[in-house]
Amino acid sequence: MEKDIIANLKTLSIDMINKAGSGHPGITLSAASIIYTVYANHMHININDSKWVDRDRFVMSAGHGSALLYATLYMCGFLTLDDLKSFRQLNSKTPGHPEYNVTPGVDMSTGPLGQGFASAVGMAIAEKHLQSLTEEELINYNIYVLCGDGDLMEGVSYEAASLAGILKLNNLIVLYDSNRISLDGETNHTFTEDVLERFDALGWQVFSVGNKVSEIDRAINKAKKSDLPVLIEVKTILGEGSLLANTNKIHGKPLTSEDISQLKQKLNIPEEEFYVNEEAVNYFKNKIMTRSSEKYLNYQKAYNDYETSHPDGYLVKFIKGETNINFNDMTIDFPQMLATRDSNQIVMNYFSEKNPLLFGGSADLASSTKAYLNDEGDFGPNNYKGKNIWYGVREHAMGSISNGLALSGYLPFCSTFLTFSDYLKPAIRMSALMELPVVYIFTHDSINVGEDGPTHQPVEQLASLRSIPGLIVYRPADFNETVGSWQNILINKKPSAIILSRAKTYNFKATSNVMVKNGAYIVRRETGKLSAILIATGTEVELALKVAEDLKKDYDIRVVSMPSVESFKKQNKEYQYEVLPVGVKTFFIEAGSSFGLRDFVSSEKYLININEFGASGKPEDVLKKYNFDYDSIRKKIKELL
Amino acid sequence: MEKDIIANLKTLSIDMINKAGSGHPGITLSAASIIYTVYANHMHININDSKWVDRDRFVMSAGHGSALLYATLYMCGFLTLDDLKSFRQLNSKTPGHPEYNVTPGVDMSTGPLGQGFASAVGMAIAEKHLQSLTEEELINYNIYVLCGDGDLMEGVSYEAASLAGILKLNNLIVLYDSNRISLDGETNHTFTEDVLERFDALGWQVFSVGNKVSEIDRAINKAKKSDLPVLIEVKTILGEGSLLANTNKIHGKPLTSEDISQLKQKLNIPEEEFYVNEEAVNYFKNKIMTRSSEKYLNYQKAYNDYETSHPDGYLVKFIKGETNINFNDMTIDFPQMLATRDSNQIVMNYFSEKNPLLFGGSADLASSTKAYLNDEGDFGPNNYKGKNIWYGVREHAMGSISNGLALSGYLPFCSTFLTFSDYLKPAIRMSALMELPVVYIFTHDSINVGEDGPTHQPVEQLASLRSIPGLIVYRPADFNETVGSWQNILINKKPSAIILSRAKTYNFKATSNVMVKNGAYIVRRETGKLSAILIATGTEVELALKVAEDLKKDYDIRVVSMPSVESFKKQNKEYQYEVLPVGVKTFFIEAGSSFGLRDFVSSEKYLININEFGASGKPEDVLKKYNFDYDSIRKKIKELL
Repeated sequence: MEKDIIANLKTLSIDMINKAGSGHPGITLSAASIIYTVYANHMHININDSKWVDRDRFVMSAGHGSALLYATLYMCGFLTLDDLKSFRQLNSKTPGHPEYNVTPGVDMSTGPLGQGFASAVGMAIAEKHLQSLTEEELINYNIYVLCGDGDLMEGVSYEAASLAGILKLNNLIVLYDSNRISLDGETNHTFTEDVLERFDALGWQVFSVGNKVSEIDRAINKAKKSDLPVLIEVKTILGEGSLLANTNKIHGKPLTSEDISQLKQKLNIPEEEFYVNEEAVNYFKNKIMTRSSEKYLNYQKAYNDYETSHPDGYLVKFIKGETNINFNDMTIDFPQMLATRDSNQIVMNYFSEKNPLLFGGSADLASSTKAYLNDEGDFGPNNYKGKNIWYGVREHAMGSISNGLALSGYLPFCSTFLTFSDYLKPAIRMSALMELPVVYIFTHDSINVGEDGPTHQPVEQLASLRSIPGLIVYRPADFNETVGSWQNILINKKPSAIILSRAKTYNFKATSNVMVKNGAYIVRRETGKLSAILIATGTEVELALKVAEDLKKDYDIRVVSMPSVESFKKQNKEYQYEVLPVGVKTFFIEAGSSFGLRDFVSSEKYLININEFGASGKPEDVLKKYNFDYDSIRKKIKELL
Repeated sequence: MEKDIIANLKTLSIDMINKAGSGHPGITLSAASIIYTVYANHMHININDSKWVDRDRFVMSAGHGSALLYATLYMCGFLTLDDLKSFRQLNSKTPGHPEYNVTPGVDMSTGPLGQGFASAVGMAIAEKHLQSLTEEELINYNIYVLCGDGDLMEGVSYEAASLAGILKLNNLIVLYDSNRISLDGETNHTFTEDVLERFDALGWQVFSVGNKVSEIDRAINKAKKSDLPVLIEVKTILGEGSLLANTNKIHGKPLTSEDISQLKQKLNIPEEEFYVNEEAVNYFKNKIMTRSSEKYLNYQKAYNDYETSHPDGYLVKFIKGETNINFNDMTIDFPQMLATRDSNQIVMNYFSEKNPLLFGGSADLASSTKAYLNDEGDFGPNNYKGKNIWYGVREHAMGSISNGLALSGYLPFCSTFLTFSDYLKPAIRMSALMELPVVYIFTHDSINVGEDGPTHQPVEQLASLRSIPGLIVYRPADFNETVGSWQNILINKKPSAIILSRAKTYNFKATSNVMVKNGAYIVRRETGKLSAILIATGTEVELALKVAEDLKKDYDIRVVSMPSVESFKKQNKEYQYEVLPVGVKTFFIEAGSSFGLRDFVSSEKYLININEFGASGKPEDVLKKYNFDYDSIRKKIKELL
């Protein structure tokens, strides 16, 4: 029966790719036995409750293997045969690469190589943490990953693997489809390293097996008992059974009809398109369901008991995801002057007490970003209860792992310097694509970081982040706006970036946490006839207010703080015109690139920005060099009025 | 004497950091013996010819160790004591992190961790390639890297190291300052892997030695004879000698005066600030110069002989860097319809024949990006003459290695899909910062890649690239503009990105290679009274021309092709107004984010773009979904006219 199911997985995949006219047949033929073994013999899932918290996770890191995954999910009962027939068509449940929230049973979107592997490490961290905070044995699941050579060549998978080794994440089982062919050809040009030795060096347990269910199964059983994360190398043949087997020609194009015929013959499957061996499918489905339903029922019972005995238990809060924060009743003390990175530390610690889902860390810069939960301890192999993750200098993995935490139900935060946000851009994009509530905290937000020089001084990063669809970027001016930014983050649960200063700024009476949701609002109103508007963000709000005050004898200036450009753009036109009436000289002051800010001013001469790389020197010298010191800005504005 | 020099390197570094009031003392104390050994006993350099092609390279990958590097360069004779005294001040030769083109003797800008290591692999590739193409034994140098734990945690260094192992780059010698402390604390939280075993798995030779000149020296001597790249772990103590030694407190803050006093006492150095032991310095300088000048004179002689006997020899062309391409005398045949990725393949192969410095590769997508030099063979351990590098699925390392190639005198190209440009953003930023002539080739440039879905469909990437200061982005409409883009790249030698389509487009008579340098120009002129202007880039130029033609009965429309937004912004106002007169309804059509394009239109309603993530489906279905199909666009424009 086993053979029949695997053969049918293969032919369904091939038929899907053939019908769609595009896709990746190679991996569907090499990895069918692997996915079969995982689902038939190990996965605990429930087709009626696809987001069951205690289910096992499966991450198709080699996302181009989507057809094989969908064929499997069809056999599980998540998808219909019609779904398979509409593979890669618009609005189908079976898109070109797996997409979270589109296909039931798909635990994350994959495609960009390495992301699945790294986010799976985040899922493994989440499971360990959740288990440690749950009094009963309610949470106990594994994360299975199917990856290929490409995933393991990506730096992000190395970063995440190194961390998984340190953290002894023995709930993580990676199946490596080792076919040694990639898109451009054989990997003897590109991937000759000893992968097993490398993972051993990283503190993993490693196995190497042939492409047989019995061998794979034995290795998974050993893996489940391991104290370490496990890599199982399965030596496969890319496109096994095809006439193009073991060449890169099988990687990314549909097979010819001749090839499909001979393959089906070899596999003892009728030629008929989308043929389904009903008996085999039922056998497979039953196998999964029998095992899973036992666990599911036990879980349900245990959870009900737990909820009764622990109405305030961590898992209850976790599952309800409600935070019940009364934002009107906030009492936090804070000093008159404070860098927003320090404001952020106070605020995130305040909210962490109220929202137990906050969980995250820094890429070896917690001392500088101050993004640290003071009373929550460090997460580590001896303390999975800790809520501060030490990511090391691994920004990219930090981002991808945060996605894994969010996919597991957490509200993850992570932090580094704004200039290094570049390192994790691919992961931020995945957060935005999956609409995950990850909070990216980026500090040291302008050239006034000073002496560290241009490599450490962000210029274009704000523009780059603001250009990502669906990401909400906050650059608070002070403590109040930092509070407001977090309130929005906690209410909206959207992918967010919060951009913070190292330089101290005043905490103003005119700023407002409530107004942050509007994206921009008036912090200084003209008294009579409006002469000009100064829009500013972050530390530049203080500067704008000072200019307005200094010029008040001659000009009646309004100052608008714009902590979130995207949020302001989403407001209705009425509000936008109220804040920024047309026909008024309007300036935009921000210590970064003007790229994307032209929307708010009538001519580029009103953009007061920095469009070149910074320089190493005292902050005041550097600001002066770029005419971004107070005097230069006041002078420029005065001249233009 | 050795001890005195090392002690003096340490105290000069500490004095620099103390005077500047910021910097990183920890590494200057742990790594002084390492840098001493490399420079005193191994480096071949010439202070009067700091860019000598056959010099050894030194890359301070742990860029925060800049003070130690500057102290060493002072002792070599590259810098003065006054330079050291102005450490981290504006316009000094001694910025906070090492900067290429600012400090003589600095072989690359470093600071963002991992970049130095990865670019050094590029330098090692360059040396192998240049040596293989040079008939005589003229080229023969080593690349020394000093790196720390942080560098080795970064994914990009893993990617580059794996490739260095495959390519057997035995000219690469990495000295690893293994102090096991990083900014946030001890690395037992973050870096417990067996680094030596990992590098062994990657095909490197590894050594582990104590922090003694004799031990380090012996290892370097062995490394020079190795057939493999070499990692030498030097077990050090962070901030050795300081009262804060072996803690993270010594990492990034100046020492107290008390600490400096006791340190100088320990090191037997007078308390006096910036004390120089002249005798020691002279001894050190002489040691380097004696060894180097012998090699330099031999090189000079050999080069003169070579130039005489091989006036057209590769090294002569390489050093002169002249290409002498007559752009007016180009005869290339090309078909009427062609995807710009295919145009690019023809064009880059054409120019490669004329410019021998083109050298590069793809991150396992050469079959799709078509960025491949057809007659130049593959670079590999058995053929260092090859000009196509197989990077594997290692986008980030590909970018950093390209920087290393450019720093070594090449004109490197590299390629992947536009959506994956995110993976190498940190490297692109380094190209831009150092103003290196790297050509980034990004294909599959819009949502019309179709079935592969949103992970593979770029939306915000053009905006992100255009926001990088100093990077010139080209999106040619057809064959002519692809030629023009390459002409500008070859003439300007600036960091560039060329954005190409998978979809076929017409090759127009109205387009012009010559006009690309202006950034934008008219490809369809109104016949009478101008009704509207359609700006378009890339594949959208064809679409814009079609709309203009279709609406010509009612409207007299000009079409402007804008292959390079940055280049157009650099034109004088006169030209800009000539192409885009004020007061005319102007549309901007581009299949990507509108972010940053508002500069060219009077209202956002004239922006015809895509500001959300794509979807998986047939290209025509996907375009329709986003109202970016021909009919929707024509309709929208008509309504607004």
